[in-house]
Amino acid sequence: MPSQERSHSLGSIVERFGGELIGDRNILITQIAPLDLAQACHLSFLAQPKYRSQLQKTKAGAVILGREARDLTLLPRIVCDDPYVYFAKVSAFLNPLKALLPGIHPSAVIAANARVPASATIGAHAFIGENVVLGERAVIGPGCCLSNGVKIGEATFLHPRVVIYHECVIGDRVVLHSGVVIGSDGFGMAMDEGRWLKIPQIGRVIIGNDVEIGANTTVDRGAMGDTVIEDGVRLDNQIQIGHNVHIGAHTAIAACVGIAGSTKIGRYCRIGGAAMIGGHLQIADNVTISGATAVAKPISKAGIYTSVYPFESHSEWLKNAAHLRHLHELAKKIRELEEQGKKQKRKTK
Amino acid sequence: MPSQERSHSLGSIVERFGGELIGDRNILITQIAPLDLAQACHLSFLAQPKYRSQLQKTKAGAVILGREARDLTLLPRIVCDDPYVYFAKVSAFLNPLKALLPGIHPSAVIAANARVPASATIGAHAFIGENVVLGERAVIGPGCCLSNGVKIGEATFLHPRVVIYHECVIGDRVVLHSGVVIGSDGFGMAMDEGRWLKIPQIGRVIIGNDVEIGANTTVDRGAMGDTVIEDGVRLDNQIQIGHNVHIGAHTAIAACVGIAGSTKIGRYCRIGGAAMIGGHLQIADNVTISGATAVAKPISKAGIYTSVYPFESHSEWLKNAAHLRHLHELAKKIRELEEQGKKQKRKTK
Amino acid sequence: MPSQERSHSLGSIVERFGGELIGDRNILITQIAPLDLAQACHLSFLAQPKYRSQLQKTKAGAVILGREARDLTLLPRIVCDDPYVYFAKVSAFLNPLKALLPGIHPSAVIAANARVPASATIGAHAFIGENVVLGERAVIGPGCCLSNGVKIGEATFLHPRVVIYHECVIGDRVVLHSGVVIGSDGFGMAMDEGRWLKIPQIGRVIIGNDVEIGANTTVDRGAMGDTVIEDGVRLDNQIQIGHNVHIGAHTAIAACVGIAGSTKIGRYCRIGGAAMIGGHLQIADNVTISGATAVAKPISKAGIYTSVYPFESHSEWLKNAAHLRHLHELAKKIRELEEQGKKQKRKTK
Repeated sequence: MPSQERSHSLGSIVERFGGELIGDRNILITQIAPLDLAQACHLSFLAQPKYRSQLQKTKAGAVILGREARDLTLLPRIVCDDPYVYFAKVSAFLNPLKALLPGIHPSAVIAANARVPASATIGAHAFIGENVVLGERAVIGPGCCLSNGVKIGEATFLHPRVVIYHECVIGDRVVLHSGVVIGSDGFGMAMDEGRWLKIPQIGRVIIGNDVEIGANTTVDRGAMGDTVIEDGVRLDNQIQIGHNVHIGAHTAIAACVGIAGSTKIGRYCRIGGAAMIGGHLQIADNVTISGATAVAKPISKAGIYTSVYPFESHSEWLKNAAHLRHLHELAKKIRELEEQGKKQKRKTK
Repeated sequence: MPSQERSHSLGSIVERFGGELIGDRNILITQIAPLDLAQACHLSFLAQPKYRSQLQKTKAGAVILGREARDLTLLPRIVCDDPYVYFAKVSAFLNPLKALLPGIHPSAVIAANARVPASATIGAHAFIGENVVLGERAVIGPGCCLSNGVKIGEATFLHPRVVIYHECVIGDRVVLHSGVVIGSDGFGMAMDEGRWLKIPQIGRVIIGNDVEIGANTTVDRGAMGDTVIEDGVRLDNQIQIGHNVHIGAHTAIAACVGIAGSTKIGRYCRIGGAAMIGGHLQIADNVTISGATAVAKPISKAGIYTSVYPFESHSEWLKNAAHLRHLHELAKKIRELEEQGKKQKRKTK
Repeated sequence: MPSQERSHSLGSIVERFGGELIGDRNILITQIAPLDLAQACHLSFLAQPKYRSQLQKTKAGAVILGREARDLTLLPRIVCDDPYVYFAKVSAFLNPLKALLPGIHPSAVIAANARVPASATIGAHAFIGENVVLGERAVIGPGCCLSNGVKIGEATFLHPRVVIYHECVIGDRVVLHSGVVIGSDGFGMAMDEGRWLKIPQIGRVIIGNDVEIGANTTVDRGAMGDTVIEDGVRLDNQIQIGHNVHIGAHTAIAACVGIAGSTKIGRYCRIGGAAMIGGHLQIADNVTISGATAVAKPISKAGIYTSVYPFESHSEWLKNAAHLRHLHELAKKIRELEEQGKKQKRKTK
């Protein structure tokens, strides 16, 4: 954890972020910590009922609680509507991004006609191509590579070794983690006389404001139109976004998800880790897809969707999975038994 | 989309690529576009019947059609055998790769004994190790790293930040996208007295001609023999190819696929996104594997293979998946009911 | 394969590694090779009964065998307890890592207060941030980026283009392959009035000794506490490790696996390729998880666990999968048939 921590009184935190303060307002807080690791200088929080037993044993100096948990501890506490959101706000306050000195590292290579404001920071060995435009206070980490014509918004932060292909457009306050590749060619080709012909990928990637993209995630450029990621989208690590995919605002996608070409995901969707979504599908707003689920058809209604084979011990699995290959025949037998039952009934009447 | 576009008459396109021209041969075309986005300066195409409704509404200046769709529009049109292949050819013609000036960026680090032809292009911060050999017109993007003894064929194009480990061999006209890693160690080890012993990975990766490999895909070197990717193979993004895998010519593999060690994939196979193929398997030529399918046994016959749990609403899934764990018992009950039915029949006869 | 190979007599190998030598002790060995590729200068091995037919046809100069296979060949041979472990040891002896000359490439950028021992090697275009500490004989490959405060142990080897975020700690003799990202932000956020608030990720990644991590694998830093990978863990390529995951010593994880946040994996586990493990789960020691298996519940007992939909031809799959969506109803019908059967029995008695 960071070493130089300033301390804040519980009272000053409540003045800043609201909530009801119960207990000593002079308690000094230096950092946020989970209930089981917290010490006297830490502010902790209870966001889920299953951690209530930890609340009894915590050594935290104070805790953030929902109204329903108000009386579960005698510790100094902040009672509020949503303890997880409150925690997020306090943590952001206690752990601000380190301000970087603006400037260009002498080892960076920058095209003469690139527009780099004085407030931008460009790291060692970065490469900035022709006609690139950087917004105010943009940070381009060491080893990043921005090809010709890329546009980067204000206060956007590229961690080391991000690659952005030509002509792609990134909004304001976007965070791209290391190893991200934006604008690589989509998987487009036609089979002609026993050989694949490549279809030029002439679209771009357009990324809105306040988007964050995790390490080693890839977003392909459009084949003809653009691939679009709207404002506020959150992508975790190692996600693959195919060409011409469109992701609606504020959708969150966990790690290892793949989304095939031309699929349109709605706003405020939540997609679990390792889900796989086929191409040319439309997914409605507010859809939740469970982790490891394969989606091969459109989803037109908000709700939760799942397709996971339930895991079990290998020996049990062997017994059950064998029958899965004959489910069709089992169903047929049941129909026959029902027919027989009906006949039998008539006979014995 | 690219800014400086030249225009071509419909007539000149048909002269170059064949097909039957119906309508004004003087229509000027600057670019390819899909039916729904096309404007008067665009040539569009109908490759699948499901887009026929878009054909009626398109603003395209002209369209490419199959013979069966010849009379579905009054627009100027090119009628041909395979509109998708025709479109691919016209698009490649209208969107040629930008010629790069040959030359070596002064920030690149190149071993004294590397062979770099005057026609090659080497980008900023590239690293070229000892005894590396580059073919004519090879392009090594910014930040690429080629370890000792790597061989790169003619007109092969490495996008920024590709890594190739020592001694690997890449053919002619290969395209490697950003973040690709070729020749990393395979996952080989032996458990000895509670510790893993690493098995040196002393093979190479051999990649044929006309191969394209997508962003952040990894191909491990052979443990003893080589990992081989034959001519014309197309790999999408974030694919993992294990050590000693052999992929037959012209096979196409979509994103997020994993192929475990020593598996041999045939020629002209098509593997859907996120499919997972176990190790030491043989897959025949012309096999199609559906997306998200797990293959744990060899496939000796061409055909389509699938293993996907069908997705449904989470509440339906809960009801059905619970029974899956007891499929064995359900099958047993059906057998018992059949036995009873037979006895009953005999009794009531 | 490496070009300058020294030869060793079979006798000298047995003196060094033990085992019973049968046949000519003066046979000269230059390299290890599999039975089907081996030539007279190669030592081969039989580790699995299924390769016995290859033993009859091999051209190897000598072979390593288990005691039970002692008399299956007339070739010069080494008989031992575990031929695979013996092979691993001989291969490591015949294929030592090439010693690199210590030193710092002039294009590397290194903070003035970083501690770099004279025995370390730093490649071209590497970036070493403030307060970084490298152990003796550490190797930092070309293009690697170590942010402020990173600690690297003795004889640890970073292949080209590894990124390590600030404050992360890597042990001794660790190998990180190209494209690895250590310490990127975990996927932590809270939904507040229609927008995601980022939760600062203030923990670190702590990696023990003798760990190897494959190409393009990502390990997120802890949200509050640390993400921990214990000694001897082996991670293959393209694995995603979420924030605050803890992986026990000597666990081996194959490619394309994802492990969601706060999950704790035991010691000596083996996780197959493309398995997906949910968040906040505890997995016991010595658990084996099959490839492509989704784990959504804790596992408290050693054993093998599986959840794979068995693959079949697409037409068979269509027939069977359709019934899976109605398994609940099938089970209900079976219950009804059983009820009817009982009634029937009573009636016909």
